[in-house]
Amino acid sequence: MPDVPISRFPVPAIEDVPEDIRARIFQVQEKAGFVPNVFLVLARRPDEFRAFFAYHDALMLKEGGLSKAEREMIVVATSAANQCLYCVVAHGALLRIYDKDPLIADQLAVNHRKADLSPRRRAMLDFAMKVSLHSGEIEDADFARLRDHGFTDEDAWDIAAIAAFFAMSNRLANMASQRPNAEFYLMGRVPRT
Amino acid sequence: MPDVPISRFPVPAIEDVPEDIRARIFQVQEKAGFVPNVFLVLARRPDEFRAFFAYHDALMLKEGGLSKAEREMIVVATSAANQCLYCVVAHGALLRIYDKDPLIADQLAVNHRKADLSPRRRAMLDFAMKVSLHSGEIEDADFARLRDHGFTDEDAWDIAAIAAFFAMSNRLANMASQRPNAEFYLMGRVPRT
Amino acid sequence: MPDVPISRFPVPAIEDVPEDIRARIFQVQEKAGFVPNVFLVLARRPDEFRAFFAYHDALMLKEGGLSKAEREMIVVATSAANQCLYCVVAHGALLRIYDKDPLIADQLAVNHRKADLSPRRRAMLDFAMKVSLHSGEIEDADFARLRDHGFTDEDAWDIAAIAAFFAMSNRLANMASQRPNAEFYLMGRVPRT
Amino acid sequence: MPDVPISRFPVPAIEDVPEDIRARIFQVQEKAGFVPNVFLVLARRPDEFRAFFAYHDALMLKEGGLSKAEREMIVVATSAANQCLYCVVAHGALLRIYDKDPLIADQLAVNHRKADLSPRRRAMLDFAMKVSLHSGEIEDADFARLRDHGFTDEDAWDIAAIAAFFAMSNRLANMASQRPNAEFYLMGRVPRT
Amino acid sequence: MPDVPISRFPVPAIEDVPEDIRARIFQVQEKAGFVPNVFLVLARRPDEFRAFFAYHDALMLKEGGLSKAEREMIVVATSAANQCLYCVVAHGALLRIYDKDPLIADQLAVNHRKADLSPRRRAMLDFAMKVSLHSGEIEDADFARLRDHGFTDEDAWDIAAIAAFFAMSNRLANMASQRPNAEFYLMGRVPRT
Amino acid sequence: MPDVPISRFPVPAIEDVPEDIRARIFQVQEKAGFVPNVFLVLARRPDEFRAFFAYHDALMLKEGGLSKAEREMIVVATSAANQCLYCVVAHGALLRIYDKDPLIADQLAVNHRKADLSPRRRAMLDFAMKVSLHSGEIEDADFARLRDHGFTDEDAWDIAAIAAFFAMSNRLANMASQRPNAEFYLMGRVPRT
Repeated sequence: MPDVPISRFPVPAIEDVPEDIRARIFQVQEKAGFVPNVFLVLARRPDEFRAFFAYHDALMLKEGGLSKAEREMIVVATSAANQCLYCVVAHGALLRIYDKDPLIADQLAVNHRKADLSPRRRAMLDFAMKVSLHSGEIEDADFARLRDHGFTDEDAWDIAAIAAFFAMSNRLANMASQRPNAEFYLMGRVPRT
Repeated sequence: MPDVPISRFPVPAIEDVPEDIRARIFQVQEKAGFVPNVFLVLARRPDEFRAFFAYHDALMLKEGGLSKAEREMIVVATSAANQCLYCVVAHGALLRIYDKDPLIADQLAVNHRKADLSPRRRAMLDFAMKVSLHSGEIEDADFARLRDHGFTDEDAWDIAAIAAFFAMSNRLANMASQRPNAEFYLMGRVPRT
Repeated sequence: MPDVPISRFPVPAIEDVPEDIRARIFQVQEKAGFVPNVFLVLARRPDEFRAFFAYHDALMLKEGGLSKAEREMIVVATSAANQCLYCVVAHGALLRIYDKDPLIADQLAVNHRKADLSPRRRAMLDFAMKVSLHSGEIEDADFARLRDHGFTDEDAWDIAAIAAFFAMSNRLANMASQRPNAEFYLMGRVPRT
Repeated sequence: MPDVPISRFPVPAIEDVPEDIRARIFQVQEKAGFVPNVFLVLARRPDEFRAFFAYHDALMLKEGGLSKAEREMIVVATSAANQCLYCVVAHGALLRIYDKDPLIADQLAVNHRKADLSPRRRAMLDFAMKVSLHSGEIEDADFARLRDHGFTDEDAWDIAAIAAFFAMSNRLANMASQRPNAEFYLMGRVPRT
Repeated sequence: MPDVPISRFPVPAIEDVPEDIRARIFQVQEKAGFVPNVFLVLARRPDEFRAFFAYHDALMLKEGGLSKAEREMIVVATSAANQCLYCVVAHGALLRIYDKDPLIADQLAVNHRKADLSPRRRAMLDFAMKVSLHSGEIEDADFARLRDHGFTDEDAWDIAAIAAFFAMSNRLANMASQRPNAEFYLMGRVPRT
Repeated sequence: MPDVPISRFPVPAIEDVPEDIRARIFQVQEKAGFVPNVFLVLARRPDEFRAFFAYHDALMLKEGGLSKAEREMIVVATSAANQCLYCVVAHGALLRIYDKDPLIADQLAVNHRKADLSPRRRAMLDFAMKVSLHSGEIEDADFARLRDHGFTDEDAWDIAAIAAFFAMSNRLANMASQRPNAEFYLMGRVPRT
């Protein structure tokens, strides 16, 4: 489907993009083999691009008590609740790769209660879903339940901050009709041999 | 109520905060006369602090088709829908000051349909509320209605991006039980003489 | 904003209003210094006016286990949930005055879970919100929780009756687009010296 | 089922009830052949009883553009939406009698869109349901639609005020677990010969 | 109201209906004294008719731990939640007859929490309502609660399967605007002598 | 994950299953190369098994105005709304195969408004979603919109009946925690060469 635009908004030509942003785009292209559309869609707003990815990296690449796969689980489950096609498909691909599990992303996208999850991960996602959907009702008991499963309060912040960041990202992508790259759909589904 | 903590999480001592963040805190203190609690609550996570305020400034301080008061209107109306006490109270204060209207913030916090708004601003807030609450249902017709009221597509992006950013901010503040400074409640209510 | 009507419906001239209603209006004016718009908006229906205020007085002025401030807390929190601008603003003013707390009304209008409340008052408002929003689900356990916080069953009736009365009042005010007087917004915010 | 109490709260003995309330109870008993439980349940609060029935009579017995059957239609449809057993059953009986239609009450209690209604009555109930369930969203267009069906603005007030009064009544009855008299269930179902 | 059609879709003439379906229709007519409209509405799709009633009979006529009345209770309560007029009225009639209780159907149609139910039947209906309205949230704890009330896991399947079958039936009847026969409304209300 | 059970309920040994059901199971196994778990989960209730698949076949295998791919689209979109993991994954596989499109199922599972759909298919799914989620609000206008897109009223019945049948199927699968076979996740994603 090569003629479907990747966004409701015009996408800048790569040569019109500021140097630092172009560098980041080339870097991700080299690593992934293609440019995820979010980089192209946001490039039209350089300051927002820079802040978005600085925030993303601060949450998704930092050290901490959550594994990379667990962070992507939060993204997939909450993005599905927000009906964000881009984030479910793109981060579902990352989740399959990080967790080395070809099934988990589709499970989380439909119903995290039916996914193959340890009790710890189930508690993590219950908290993330509450932050995403009913943050005004968060209470001490929600933190206590996380502690029962071995999460520290720093982990709780991480879970909530990821859910919150993608609450923003989901709304931007839905507003812009940001289209996931076709490559994402298949990534991590077939074991590499 | 001096003994109510400003966050569910510990707040760093100002001398333990990185230099650039401390400078920003002193700067806002000088301008406002006090330090809004969001700066203290987020300071414990320097990278997230920097990204948060870079994003905030990119959306709220930039040039564009929306006035400063209009941007704050989006914040107040969507933050009320998300039941975020900090954002409603703090940005309500800014809105009263920018719009020179002591009533508008309280009106928007209860029901934007009953506020004293021009048709243009009503359309702006209807769009912002849809981005905040039902972003998966955004359609071409929503953009068309904005255009009918004189908004460009760049304005539409701005409206949506502000609503999206505060969707994140609301969830963080609710999670952290971030307390608004007492000063905000009264700001802009009494005409300065 | 002197030219915005106080109701979607015509308001009778004070000289056309029945004697007893006019007396009540003059009485409140003398006490408050202005005539709250609800008196003018309802005056066009004298029988309804009389029943409305008789009911109001029976619930809000009676002796009982709830303080005046607590009754107004119920009004503010449930009226915010019903998006009733008039009741939030007018009763927010009364709450600030009765509770001698300039912040509590704004807190309750956004999220009663984040307000500065004793556990007793939190339980009172949880019950009031359930009556207002999900009365069909009220069960024995709801009354038991009130008793745990020292409320009698008569107090429970009072809480519920106030929430129920303002469920009506909110709907009337929303239907009539009843506008709060500008005076209410500032009342009780600045300590009298 | 003679041993199921008619309310969660104690019901006063008839001889302990104030004279005027007792008179009203005897009057309704003489007319109906039994005492509807709402009179007994509310009698424990004489001032609230008097205000409740004064308001009820002002809305339900007054002259106006709505027939008695139409007023009861509003009660039945909105009370079903609020899951109030007492009001659906008791006012369903009155509706069957006033409308001389044994089916209409059950239809409205399940789904007013599937009931045998003229377009005028359908518009009346759509407005009443919006007042009952989403009053914060009432707009000029809602009044315009009523006018298209021949309703005056006074009729609109009547429709809304009945929906609002029973929003209160439903919450009181649900809170008190007010039980409908067994007699109501069958009234108006069998043509009198 | 003889001129209101029984369905939004054309109903086949009885002589055009396949032999086996006609036989079933005559059989139910002989037993009930009239032909419930569901048989006529579905007859236009013979294969669907046969599967529908085979499924219905497998769930409603089989042996098992649930009485006939209890099965109809599930139908009435869940169909009311789905606003299906046909199923509430037709199965309400069956429930009154099987349970020899003229009141229970109307109670369940408004609010199963306020109906005259044993704790066992209340637990049964809580489970059925969850299957009907929030099946994605069903957890082990829901089955445990049923066991506490003496239900086997086979009973749990029966409760859920009936709720699920009528989730389908409700949607079909709502789509087709399937009209309940007038006879159902009165059945089982007057004790036969 | 070989040790996760395929259902919350025990699954019968294949040799204990009635002859006709065993035949159907062998038949599907021969065609698909594996036995979809729904056949094993339902086999414990032979009468329900037979009715379920008779109904399924009457809707999904019949001639008519909807293509096989379109029928599966209805299943995937409505099953996602009901959070049914089995149906989304199993019918997503069929949809990819029938539509020869490796992306469409994941798109529909997240947000049918963002999927690559013709206006005709979008209208079909809007109708199916309304039947699935708000069937009590179906009106003549919904059928008119389908006709505008070239659907006959027989097509409308088909769309609604498929949505209704899977409303049942989703609830059964959620109740039983019916697990999709791992094979489904990858089917139709890689072009066969």
